[in-house]
Amino acid sequence: MAAASQLLRGASRAPPALSAASRRWLGSAPPGVPAVRGGRRWALAGALGGLGLGLGLWRQRASMAAAEEEEEEEMRRRFMAPPVSGLRELRRRRRELGSRMELLIMETQAEVCRALAALDPGASFAVDTWERKEGGGGISCVLQDGEVFEKAGVNVSVVFGQLSEEAARQMRSRGKALKASKDGKLPFCAMGVSSVIHPKNPHVPTMHFNYRYFEIEEADGTKQWWFGGGTDLTPTYLNEEDAVHFHKTLKEVCDKHDLKLYPKYKKWCDDYFYIKHRDERRGIGGIFFDDVDSPSKEEAFQFVQSCAKAVVPSYVPIVKKHCHDSYTPEEKLWQQLRRGRYVEFNLVYDRGTKFGLLTPGSRIESILMSLPLTARWEYMNTPPESSKEAKMLEVLRNPKDWVH
Amino acid sequence: MAAASQLLRGASRAPPALSAASRRWLGSAPPGVPAVRGGRRWALAGALGGLGLGLGLWRQRASMAAAEEEEEEEMRRRFMAPPVSGLRELRRRRRELGSRMELLIMETQAEVCRALAALDPGASFAVDTWERKEGGGGISCVLQDGEVFEKAGVNVSVVFGQLSEEAARQMRSRGKALKASKDGKLPFCAMGVSSVIHPKNPHVPTMHFNYRYFEIEEADGTKQWWFGGGTDLTPTYLNEEDAVHFHKTLKEVCDKHDLKLYPKYKKWCDDYFYIKHRDERRGIGGIFFDDVDSPSKEEAFQFVQSCAKAVVPSYVPIVKKHCHDSYTPEEKLWQQLRRGRYVEFNLVYDRGTKFGLLTPGSRIESILMSLPLTARWEYMNTPPESSKEAKMLEVLRNPKDWVH
Repeated sequence: MAAASQLLRGASRAPPALSAASRRWLGSAPPGVPAVRGGRRWALAGALGGLGLGLGLWRQRASMAAAEEEEEEEMRRRFMAPPVSGLRELRRRRRELGSRMELLIMETQAEVCRALAALDPGASFAVDTWERKEGGGGISCVLQDGEVFEKAGVNVSVVFGQLSEEAARQMRSRGKALKASKDGKLPFCAMGVSSVIHPKNPHVPTMHFNYRYFEIEEADGTKQWWFGGGTDLTPTYLNEEDAVHFHKTLKEVCDKHDLKLYPKYKKWCDDYFYIKHRDERRGIGGIFFDDVDSPSKEEAFQFVQSCAKAVVPSYVPIVKKHCHDSYTPEEKLWQQLRRGRYVEFNLVYDRGTKFGLLTPGSRIESILMSLPLTARWEYMNTPPESSKEAKMLEVLRNPKDWVH
Repeated sequence: MAAASQLLRGASRAPPALSAASRRWLGSAPPGVPAVRGGRRWALAGALGGLGLGLGLWRQRASMAAAEEEEEEEMRRRFMAPPVSGLRELRRRRRELGSRMELLIMETQAEVCRALAALDPGASFAVDTWERKEGGGGISCVLQDGEVFEKAGVNVSVVFGQLSEEAARQMRSRGKALKASKDGKLPFCAMGVSSVIHPKNPHVPTMHFNYRYFEIEEADGTKQWWFGGGTDLTPTYLNEEDAVHFHKTLKEVCDKHDLKLYPKYKKWCDDYFYIKHRDERRGIGGIFFDDVDSPSKEEAFQFVQSCAKAVVPSYVPIVKKHCHDSYTPEEKLWQQLRRGRYVEFNLVYDRGTKFGLLTPGSRIESILMSLPLTARWEYMNTPPESSKEAKMLEVLRNPKDWVH
């Protein structure tokens, strides 16, 4: 935990007000990324000003300024906004897993946002950075009401502090033996990237992914750590070719690490995204895992990194293929009903949403960004037998194996 | 409990197949109520057929048939469908509270449905009766996509059996000392009428009401019983005159029973319909109460009866006043965002929805009928200061007293 909270302490050293560096971020964002807006921003110390300095000091300042500009340039190239922990701090601690994971989630965010923005040239991502007063913060990138995407959100968050009692209770109920200190405190650090992409066209599926790293320090100083995550697809209509492409991409990634992973995480995904009261899965699955703390920290990280890199190749080709497909008002209606089911899963069952709603100081707009722009609930809607809609439901009730 | 389960056992004696009586219900429904459809129907024993009967037996049968027709005529006049427990059984046990409550919820359902159907002449209520294999059943009346109402549902249910462990746990957490028998069983009976009305026009508020009666038999034979319920209003835009009319109607009803009730139940309503993660109430409240088991069974019932009778006068005048108001696309959008909050409350916090999702064999379509036809979630929507939307939010954040 020491590592993680030191890692994060970097953030609090940055001035909270909008610095010169941050203002430049506002001025020239990458394509599809017009504005960093809202909230307080972490920025590199905006130490360019100052009056009455001697020449030596001025030179020193000037060289610092040059280094900062270079750093800033690098961040603009690599990320959607400056990382929560600050690039310099991440670099200084570059061997630590927390830093490597933070860089990975930042890069994944930028990679996905840019790939999506390229598909929807008229739209743009709003980039909000936010700070959590209990510790940490995040960057939310949301594209809303575009031509291709109804709502696409890619969030990064790095939060730390004391685990809430309710969150500890939920973790214990999953079998974690968390020994709190006498005052009941359990320092934690959680970081991750999470994303939900709801396209407009009912022939383009919704996609969700989330990769996260968790550390808890117990009373005796033991550190528990684990990774979790997954990528899954929620089509409105079943397209078998797309389903195979999606699962095949994920399977290839898993197979490179261990042949046992794909079958295990594919099943876990089908089991996790289960809307019990409907006896339906949310979609056609993908992979899902949690509490991964083996075979080693390094290997677990490598696996998560491979998964994160597979998001764009698993999904973007499907969007490209269908985003100009024609569709009927009836197909749009069916999509809206499926969006309703998406909302049901996220609000009733999803562990991430629940953890978010239970964590004091969490940013509700970022958590609920996963909800679609629009949804519909009709009483007693049952598609006719053998219809395309019934075929979709059949697969949601009886998950299939898409690759062998 | 014996009373309640005997009361309900009447239902299981009726033949499950569609009887002649039930077919007639299908043929001639009251205005605005075109069809009883779907599911299995409880009907009076369809004992009109039969071959090889002697004349005496035939006459006896004929007189029974006349009595049945009369009974059926009465039910058609009074109810939306035959009661779960059967009219004859309800009559036989007319002094018992369970029977009186079942009649009250049936009459309330019909009264509200007819009042709404009269406001939306082009639309009609679909009436579904359903049976719960674990015990009991219900009648769901839903009007969807009308001119005035986007979705209006009025449900009755009368269910009994053994309380699920999870439901018992939740009740205990509310302070109920429920002593189960050695095998962990807790026989229960729950009945109620519940309704959510989502109008199309953003100047007509959404209304919800629910009145229910609960009985649990403990291991030593002790019977715990209580009433719960309430009526509350969720406007898209604040209209102070409507808010005063609504609260005044409810206050007058409460005041007739006890002057302490309205202030207590008004506050309970504001506290209950609280969307914690938004720091907003769902609407402008009304009354809400639970676990009411005083001053006596009779007086508690009388109070609930008065509340149920106040539903139409508290709401219908508001619908009449505004259902032809003109509105802008922006006002419709704001309504859709408020609908999204309604969904958040119902899926994340509502105790009734949670109890329903936890009770094995419950009818999901009836429980989730409370969700609006359409809803919307925009990332970071904040209405401009001093706008009509901001004024609505202000009242949701700081509930007001509407009558003194």
